[in-house]
Amino acid sequence: MSDNDNWKAGYDLMVRMMGPEFAKTMEASVNSGRFAADVGRMAVEHAFGAVWARPGLELKQRSVVVISTLIALRQSDELRNHLRFGINNGLSAEEIQEIIIQTVPYVGFPAVSSALAVAVEVLRERGMDGGVKTASERGLL
Amino acid sequence: MSDNDNWKAGYDLMVRMMGPEFAKTMEASVNSGRFAADVGRMAVEHAFGAVWARPGLELKQRSVVVISTLIALRQSDELRNHLRFGINNGLSAEEIQEIIIQTVPYVGFPAVSSALAVAVEVLRERGMDGGVKTASERGLL
Amino acid sequence: MSDNDNWKAGYDLMVRMMGPEFAKTMEASVNSGRFAADVGRMAVEHAFGAVWARPGLELKQRSVVVISTLIALRQSDELRNHLRFGINNGLSAEEIQEIIIQTVPYVGFPAVSSALAVAVEVLRERGMDGGVKTASERGLL
Amino acid sequence: MSDNDNWKAGYDLMVRMMGPEFAKTMEASVNSGRFAADVGRMAVEHAFGAVWARPGLELKQRSVVVISTLIALRQSDELRNHLRFGINNGLSAEEIQEIIIQTVPYVGFPAVSSALAVAVEVLRERGMDGGVKTASERGLL
Amino acid sequence: MSDNDNWKAGYDLMVRMMGPEFAKTMEASVNSGRFAADVGRMAVEHAFGAVWARPGLELKQRSVVVISTLIALRQSDELRNHLRFGINNGLSAEEIQEIIIQTVPYVGFPAVSSALAVAVEVLRERGMDGGVKTASERGLL
Amino acid sequence: MSDNDNWKAGYDLMVRMMGPEFAKTMEASVNSGRFAADVGRMAVEHAFGAVWARPGLELKQRSVVVISTLIALRQSDELRNHLRFGINNGLSAEEIQEIIIQTVPYVGFPAVSSALAVAVEVLRERGMDGGVKTASERGLL
Repeated sequence: MSDNDNWKAGYDLMVRMMGPEFAKTMEASVNSGRFAADVGRMAVEHAFGAVWARPGLELKQRSVVVISTLIALRQSDELRNHLRFGINNGLSAEEIQEIIIQTVPYVGFPAVSSALAVAVEVLRERGMDGGVKTASERGLL
Repeated sequence: MSDNDNWKAGYDLMVRMMGPEFAKTMEASVNSGRFAADVGRMAVEHAFGAVWARPGLELKQRSVVVISTLIALRQSDELRNHLRFGINNGLSAEEIQEIIIQTVPYVGFPAVSSALAVAVEVLRERGMDGGVKTASERGLL
Repeated sequence: MSDNDNWKAGYDLMVRMMGPEFAKTMEASVNSGRFAADVGRMAVEHAFGAVWARPGLELKQRSVVVISTLIALRQSDELRNHLRFGINNGLSAEEIQEIIIQTVPYVGFPAVSSALAVAVEVLRERGMDGGVKTASERGLL
Repeated sequence: MSDNDNWKAGYDLMVRMMGPEFAKTMEASVNSGRFAADVGRMAVEHAFGAVWARPGLELKQRSVVVISTLIALRQSDELRNHLRFGINNGLSAEEIQEIIIQTVPYVGFPAVSSALAVAVEVLRERGMDGGVKTASERGLL
Repeated sequence: MSDNDNWKAGYDLMVRMMGPEFAKTMEASVNSGRFAADVGRMAVEHAFGAVWARPGLELKQRSVVVISTLIALRQSDELRNHLRFGINNGLSAEEIQEIIIQTVPYVGFPAVSSALAVAVEVLRERGMDGGVKTASERGLL
Repeated sequence: MSDNDNWKAGYDLMVRMMGPEFAKTMEASVNSGRFAADVGRMAVEHAFGAVWARPGLELKQRSVVVISTLIALRQSDELRNHLRFGINNGLSAEEIQEIIIQTVPYVGFPAVSSALAVAVEVLRERGMDGGVKTASERGLL
């Protein structure tokens, strides 16, 4: 695949996962000639085009992978973006809750606490913060 | 839920995900009175019973979360165990490949390289190392 | 021990280490039915009830463990909370200073610098920032 | 070498790398008797005097080492300082760009994204943000 | 304090914490002229002499700090050394167990699992692996 | 640049930095159809072709960046490879020593200790372990 193909695959994926506005802004930034704009180009071609657009795992599952990775890396800013993309890829509030809770035994409470703060913010932004009941409310605990 | 219930839920989950041998060995270790055996008890009750056994996300998805987390944390030994559990939870060789490749842009090649070494080992152990074709073989690159 | 017992042990510990206000707010949050409120329950039962409340090491020593861990993990927000709890558990300003300095050779100056910023903030909040003299003032260097 | 010598070597280096104002402020802080002022003394003597002032690698190269290390450690605040010192040690905007881009395959995009935000800030502060063209503008991609 | 004084303080501390054999071997290595022998000198002077030998926190407490830090950093080799030094500084098997268990909620099970493997090894080496009963054996769980 | 061009640039760079044997083995592995062989392709195209082969910083400097990054990430296996490549790119034993020592104040002694073990191994392998004198031998300390 040429980098042109990677760019096209990455651009199409950005339109689908993040919306056309995001993709256009990214393109403008990549072509801006600004400091390190090539990092943006590499992200489109090498992350979105050559990795995210691969067959073999659906986008929603790829979001689960990336969100889990970013919780473990304690990268709150990138996590915020990828929670938004994950919702666009079909993740529900309950699934996001369970992903975060599933990381507790592996990354510890402090990393989870940072992740929760970001998740609540994104869910409110999307009007999705009312749709989740805790396990105790469902009579499970 | 009482810790007895957590223990039972965790024990049942271990039987299902790791087989009855593993669960019995874990139980014996927890009851051995050896140094820090309580950590084993906490793992059964608080990780397997109270987290893994929750509703809202199926076991296969929970494996995706934990495997991704362990790649990011560069914890090869635990990754080996959780790749085995993930296969028991239904992950195919191709899905494992795609999970690992999906982490490249976020954790970098060195962490991925460590993860691959462990994955190849587990897939061979399970006789699953023949079932994957690369994207290039499928005419995708 | 049942999770009810863990909850009780955790709740009592929160009252002792963080004050009754904190414990009540935590309880309200856990019972709020809000997104991921179960993480709060897990923190009370599995961190405070099942770990902090164990015999074999006094609370002040447990604070030393957790503060050191959080410096190494570079988790400033959780460090702020645990410096407060550590003071409630009996740590003096000088002991906090020495804990932080003791981590320098192991975590490096950048992580220590982040920890110091948080520690100075907490000591001021408690009116404890006047009580420490440097080693040089004491004629030791 | 005595710690007095380390102090002198470190102080001279601070004057050279950070300017006399910075060195004086640091000295005042070290002698302030404030909480953990000894950490400042250790930084001057053990980091600047005993490490940075060593022969065998020029200051500009030492800046490359430290900037790369801080990108990998995701320590944005210290990175900001060391980008400033690196510019004082002779690093150009293009060299800083290439250092950051060179870390992408090893630390991943999220850590690089945090580093870029800080670098753009420092380059603007120094009026150096106009001097870099992307590889694509130079007809290289 | 001169670096000669730091050396002396560090050397005395090594004799006390690690025994005279260890201190002599370290000294020989520092004076060997081998690659990076200066790192050993820096460890003696800047870690043992200037940090460990400070007043304000006893050696046993400093061991608690360093052991906790090394668990969080997942540095098994250094942890092995510092568990030995910690025992020499007065830590019992039960205290070591409780330090490790206290880190579970903050670093997660995988890091704790690595730490336990090293701790069991050191306790066996010292003939201290029989002296600990689990909480459950003491009727606490 | 097409991915074909990235492949060619990456392949040429591997020949130059690692020798023709290494490049051929890598090519065979990428075309093997084995599990995750695409990760090798991505390394050649996206790491060596699209990053290492960029203008603006010479290969020796890029080695300094990557070696520093791998010390901070505590990735001993990748560090071993990149020390070899760095020597091929012109780094002397003394420069490698100074890179490692320069990281001490930022990453701490444990990470440096792991890096030193690997560096000594590589220098011996290359017959370069005799060429370095410590600062103290040169009358500098």
